[in-house]
Amino acid sequence: MNYDRTYNFSAGPAMMPEAVLEEIAAEVLNYRGSGMSVMEMSHRSKEFQQIRDEAEADLRKLMNIPDNYKVLFVQGGGTVQFAMVAMNLMKNGLGCYVETGAWSKKAIAEAKKFGEVKIVASSKDKNFSYVPDCSDLDIPENADYVYICENETINGTTYFKLPNTKGKPLVTDQSSMFLSRPCNVADYGLIWAGVQKNVGPAGMAVVIIREDLIRDDLPSSVPTYMSYKTHADADSLYNTPNCWAIYCCGKVFKYLLAQGGLEAMNRRNEEKAAILYDFLDQSKFFTGAVRKQDRSLMNVPFVTPSKEQDAAVVAASKAAGFDNLKGHKSVGGLRASIYNAMPREGVEALVDFLKKYESEQN
Amino acid sequence: MNYDRTYNFSAGPAMMPEAVLEEIAAEVLNYRGSGMSVMEMSHRSKEFQQIRDEAEADLRKLMNIPDNYKVLFVQGGGTVQFAMVAMNLMKNGLGCYVETGAWSKKAIAEAKKFGEVKIVASSKDKNFSYVPDCSDLDIPENADYVYICENETINGTTYFKLPNTKGKPLVTDQSSMFLSRPCNVADYGLIWAGVQKNVGPAGMAVVIIREDLIRDDLPSSVPTYMSYKTHADADSLYNTPNCWAIYCCGKVFKYLLAQGGLEAMNRRNEEKAAILYDFLDQSKFFTGAVRKQDRSLMNVPFVTPSKEQDAAVVAASKAAGFDNLKGHKSVGGLRASIYNAMPREGVEALVDFLKKYESEQN
Repeated sequence: MNYDRTYNFSAGPAMMPEAVLEEIAAEVLNYRGSGMSVMEMSHRSKEFQQIRDEAEADLRKLMNIPDNYKVLFVQGGGTVQFAMVAMNLMKNGLGCYVETGAWSKKAIAEAKKFGEVKIVASSKDKNFSYVPDCSDLDIPENADYVYICENETINGTTYFKLPNTKGKPLVTDQSSMFLSRPCNVADYGLIWAGVQKNVGPAGMAVVIIREDLIRDDLPSSVPTYMSYKTHADADSLYNTPNCWAIYCCGKVFKYLLAQGGLEAMNRRNEEKAAILYDFLDQSKFFTGAVRKQDRSLMNVPFVTPSKEQDAAVVAASKAAGFDNLKGHKSVGGLRASIYNAMPREGVEALVDFLKKYESEQN
Repeated sequence: MNYDRTYNFSAGPAMMPEAVLEEIAAEVLNYRGSGMSVMEMSHRSKEFQQIRDEAEADLRKLMNIPDNYKVLFVQGGGTVQFAMVAMNLMKNGLGCYVETGAWSKKAIAEAKKFGEVKIVASSKDKNFSYVPDCSDLDIPENADYVYICENETINGTTYFKLPNTKGKPLVTDQSSMFLSRPCNVADYGLIWAGVQKNVGPAGMAVVIIREDLIRDDLPSSVPTYMSYKTHADADSLYNTPNCWAIYCCGKVFKYLLAQGGLEAMNRRNEEKAAILYDFLDQSKFFTGAVRKQDRSLMNVPFVTPSKEQDAAVVAASKAAGFDNLKGHKSVGGLRASIYNAMPREGVEALVDFLKKYESEQN
């Protein structure tokens, strides 16, 4: 590291692996002797086709994606996916949703535009500080799918056990945990993730969809872009995709494979999160906001005894070189997002800072 | 130039100014001492807010955009704009379209999903090789807007005189001519442009919309992302935007201002296009495909006497270091896209090559 790199605890866009950024910097002006930047390449060129194909192949390898799943690269982030999921999968007009916080609520609000939504479980009663029991949900026979936000970025919860969907396809928003741990793709009907949290630059979502869920009988009122079939039939090249994001994410996929894949990332993420949670558990000043068994390894919200002190810690942390520790405006407090690319040293430095801060409170 | 830069005649994504790429390369790892890449920055951070605000301010300056127009940065490219225009502007359910080639046809097909489309003029009779007379169109009283593709990328035509819309808002797709020449924004109700042709990396469209056309009474079935109001109310930060594209385009806006703005670009583009058109006009082997008065300054389609010879020229040009001269599969022949960032030397080199090629045909 030949320059000062900030420990950036942003919930997203967030840190990328330094080794990947160095590769990108070296290729900005001239991609492998092509005489052009990837930003200048026709998306129909052989060079870009190879970049795209390798990105998909590497992601398939990383996640061990079965052949009957398509991998799509779609623009528009979560806001577009909230709509696409409902517009494409609500064949009977009924989606079941588990309400666990800010992002599942957004998904629910958008789905209501396109059909009926049944909330089959919720943790609203305790300010979304836990994941509800989903072992015996009341799923109607005509339900099209069961939707979860598998890691609530703002509220800091995660599922360690997937819901029993009673045979209905499970749809998951993995945005803030994508590629942070192994995932059995066959457990899902559809996985989507905005890439700007745990993978690469903003402007793209990855969608992994079981082929039988790709419909060719959508109402004609569905915009062409909003049909999964549009993207699936054209290998995500129906129109010009976010080529730069595909290129950068592809590099991150290769990097993760070289690091030992998702098992290795999970081990590291467990270790990193434990450093922070162990500190919070023994602290008399800072308190974790989430029930222990549901704590996210990626997003760690915590509070001090008062809002004023929350703000004071945020200000002091910024002055000490830690960025983006303020909790989301909707919940307050503090939040450390410690995605794949946050080095262990960053978490250790944060805990050292918090310890020192606490010791100075008396 | 300390490396071999390819003369890339791609229709898009396409060349970016070398000076801009050099600036980007220097900042990839550490944006102005922030300790992070722009790709890693929270879109809610002060640093990124400044990048966004400057990009908008510079674009307003470049195009002299009146205060009663909003500037939006939207993901999803033309495919999303085709739908958004119709979904947002079809208040009475009727859009008038001028059919001039591949991209206006796409816009028409998409608009039909959301209302009635009336084709008020067409150049289909002559294979879209000209722009029809639009001085006295039959625009119904209840028409919501008149839509044109102001520069047909594939067919190589451009409007030098805007249609008389009989008082209805003019909506234009400027993707392949955006910022290539001065433009009186007040002549339009809405201007949109995918940025990947004449500005920056793929994955974003710029939308310039007159405020009175932003509706707050859209049917609830319109996806949140597809409402112009969503983006206008949040200054394009309703959700995480394509931050990288905003950053890169912002740099191009600054570069264009430093070059003398759109008047200067227009002069250069006229000169560059004249070099190529003058050659085609005197050639006995190559023939321009478009009526003289409607020729695009950006996309120059031309043919040889046969398809076989078209293919032979494309192969020879590639071998000689010119990239992407093959015409679009839907029209064949050859096409040179010579956007803002194509240096004059690139066009001169291409003409030298074509001259030599022609001389060797006897």
